[in-house]
Amino acid sequence: MTNTNVLGVGNAIVDVLTHASEEFIADQHAKYGMEKGGMMLIETDRATQLYGQIGQATEMSGGSAANTIAIIAGLGGSASFIGKVADDQLGDVFAHDLQSTAVQFTTPRLTGGVPTARCFILVTPDAQRTMNTYLGAAAQLNADDIDEAVVADAQVSYLEGYLFDKDAAKQAFRRVGEIAHKHGNEVALSLSDSFCVERHRADFQDLVENHIDILFANEQEIMALYETDTFEQAQDIISGKCKLAALTRGDKGSVIISEGETVSVSAVIPAQLEDTTGAGDAYAGGFLYGYTNGYSLKQSAELGTVLATEIISHMGPRTDKDLKFFTEGLKKAS
Amino acid sequence: MTNTNVLGVGNAIVDVLTHASEEFIADQHAKYGMEKGGMMLIETDRATQLYGQIGQATEMSGGSAANTIAIIAGLGGSASFIGKVADDQLGDVFAHDLQSTAVQFTTPRLTGGVPTARCFILVTPDAQRTMNTYLGAAAQLNADDIDEAVVADAQVSYLEGYLFDKDAAKQAFRRVGEIAHKHGNEVALSLSDSFCVERHRADFQDLVENHIDILFANEQEIMALYETDTFEQAQDIISGKCKLAALTRGDKGSVIISEGETVSVSAVIPAQLEDTTGAGDAYAGGFLYGYTNGYSLKQSAELGTVLATEIISHMGPRTDKDLKFFTEGLKKAS
Repeated sequence: MTNTNVLGVGNAIVDVLTHASEEFIADQHAKYGMEKGGMMLIETDRATQLYGQIGQATEMSGGSAANTIAIIAGLGGSASFIGKVADDQLGDVFAHDLQSTAVQFTTPRLTGGVPTARCFILVTPDAQRTMNTYLGAAAQLNADDIDEAVVADAQVSYLEGYLFDKDAAKQAFRRVGEIAHKHGNEVALSLSDSFCVERHRADFQDLVENHIDILFANEQEIMALYETDTFEQAQDIISGKCKLAALTRGDKGSVIISEGETVSVSAVIPAQLEDTTGAGDAYAGGFLYGYTNGYSLKQSAELGTVLATEIISHMGPRTDKDLKFFTEGLKKAS
Repeated sequence: MTNTNVLGVGNAIVDVLTHASEEFIADQHAKYGMEKGGMMLIETDRATQLYGQIGQATEMSGGSAANTIAIIAGLGGSASFIGKVADDQLGDVFAHDLQSTAVQFTTPRLTGGVPTARCFILVTPDAQRTMNTYLGAAAQLNADDIDEAVVADAQVSYLEGYLFDKDAAKQAFRRVGEIAHKHGNEVALSLSDSFCVERHRADFQDLVENHIDILFANEQEIMALYETDTFEQAQDIISGKCKLAALTRGDKGSVIISEGETVSVSAVIPAQLEDTTGAGDAYAGGFLYGYTNGYSLKQSAELGTVLATEIISHMGPRTDKDLKFFTEGLKKAS
C-alpha cells in the first residue's frame, strides 16, 4: 500500500538562467565543446569562468526529476524527492522550493564539502536552452541516501538518466529500482538528453528492457538509444520492450505506447514561446500525476502537454502559479 | 572631470520573488503589520518564518539604487555602485549581476558576520509588489566604505532613501554628499517609499532643501514628504526647493520640474502588466542615463518611461535583455 504518488530521484540543482546570443553559443562550442540544446558537465574552474562570461541572471530551483516532482505536487499530488544539496544558501533555495509545494524532501545535506549544484542555462532567441552543469554536492548522492521507507511508499519511483553520469549516483539509482520492485511498485526513467544517451547507451538499453516499467524520452533521445534514422523505427523497437513508453516530439505532440495500444496527443502551441527549459520535465509531471491518479493514458498525456506548454511560456523550469486549475473538471475514465 | 555617469549607493540585496494572494497579504497585515505596496524591514527569525510561508520563488539581484545602476549600465552608460554584501553565495549573485553589465563594484565584502541581504517580494494578482527586507550585510555599510575617488569620478551620485533606515548607512549617505559637492558633482536622492518618508520626514525635507540637486519621488512619496492632500500641492512646494525633481505618477505619467520649467510625459502602458517591482528604479535609470549624456529633460523622462514599462512587463526588477535598443536613434537636443 503506497501513500505517495511519485518519488523523484535526481540531481538537486539550482538553475542560473540568462539569455545568450547564437554567436556566444557558437564561440563556446568552438572553444569548450558546448553543444546547443544539450547538457554538458563542467568543473569548478570552468563554472567560475563561464559565470564571468554570461550576463545578468535569474536563479531558480531546477534539476530534471525535481522539476517533475514540483509539478506533481503543484497539481495536488503526493510527492517526495531524494537528491543531495550542500548546507549552503543555494541548498536552502532548493529545499525551500520543494518543501513549499509540500514535497517530502529529507535527504541529509552534504556538510563541509563542495557547494550545491548549479546549472548555467543559456536561452537563445529561438527559446532553445543550452545547459552547463556544475554537479557539486548533487554528485555525492549515493546508495546510503536511499531511504527504503520512502521508496516503498511511492507508487512510481521516477529516475533521471543524468544520474548515470556519476558512479555513486548510479548505485543509488539501482538501489531505488530494487526496493521499488521488491515492494511491487513501478520504476520510471527519463532518458534526460541525447548526449547523455550517447554516454550510457548500453546501460540504458539494459535498463529499459529489464528494469524499467515506464520510459520517458523525446524524439532525439529514443532515436539515439536505438541508433535509428527515423522516429518510427525507434517507436517500433520500443514497443514491447517496456510496459509503457511516453515519447515526446516537441510541436509534433506525443505518443504513448502501452502493451500494443498507441495513443497520440497533439501539442498545444503557447501564445508566447519563451524558454523550452523544463518542457520534458513538466510533461512527465503532468503525465505521472494523471497516471498515478487513475486517469486514462490519453488524459494523462493531455495533462502533460498543457503543463509543458505552461512551462515554456516563461523563463525557467518551474512556476509558482496555482496548477490545480489544470485538473479542475478532469473526470476519471472509469 | 568625471568619467562615470552615475554612482549608485544603496542596500545590496538579492530579491526572492513569488506570487501571493490578496488573502495572504491581508492575513500578514493583520498578524505582522505587512503593508501592501510598502517595504517592511524584518529580522532573522521573521525572515525564516516568512520564507517558510511563501511558495516557490525566483531569486534575482535587486536593491533600489543597484537596479537603477544596472539599467544605466545596460543602456551603455558608465556606472559604479557602493553597497555591502557578505562573502556568501547570494553575495556572489549580487556582485556577478552588477559586474556582468560592467558596473564598477568594489566595496569590500563583509566576512564572518551576517549573510547578504534578501528581500521577499510578494506579487499580488494586480501586479503590485509588497516587500519584506532582511538587511543583513547591507546594513553594515558605513562611511569607511565610501571611496572618495569613486564618488569624485561620478557626474551624479544617486542615493536611495532606504539608507536612512540604519545609522551607519546614513553616515555613508552624508559622506557621499559631502565628497560629491566638494568635487562639483551632483547628488540625487530617491525617496524610495512613502512609509520610508514617514519614518524620516524631517531628515528628507532638510536633505531636499539643502543637500540634494535631483529628487526622484512618486506621487505618494512627495505627498507624504509635505503632508499634502493633492499631488498639485506637493508639486507647488517642491518647485524651487531643489534644482530638479522627477515625479512619477504610475499610469498618469511623470512630471519634471526644473528651475521654473515643467515637463510632463505620458506613461507607456505595457502590453502585459506583470509585476511593478523596480518600476521607479528603472525610470530613474533611464532618466539619469539621458540626463548625464546631454539629452533634454523630455527625452530623459521619455527614456525613463519606456524602461519602466519594460521592467513591469515581467517578474523582477532587472532584465538581461539588450537595452541599447532603447537609445538607438535618440538624438541630442543641441
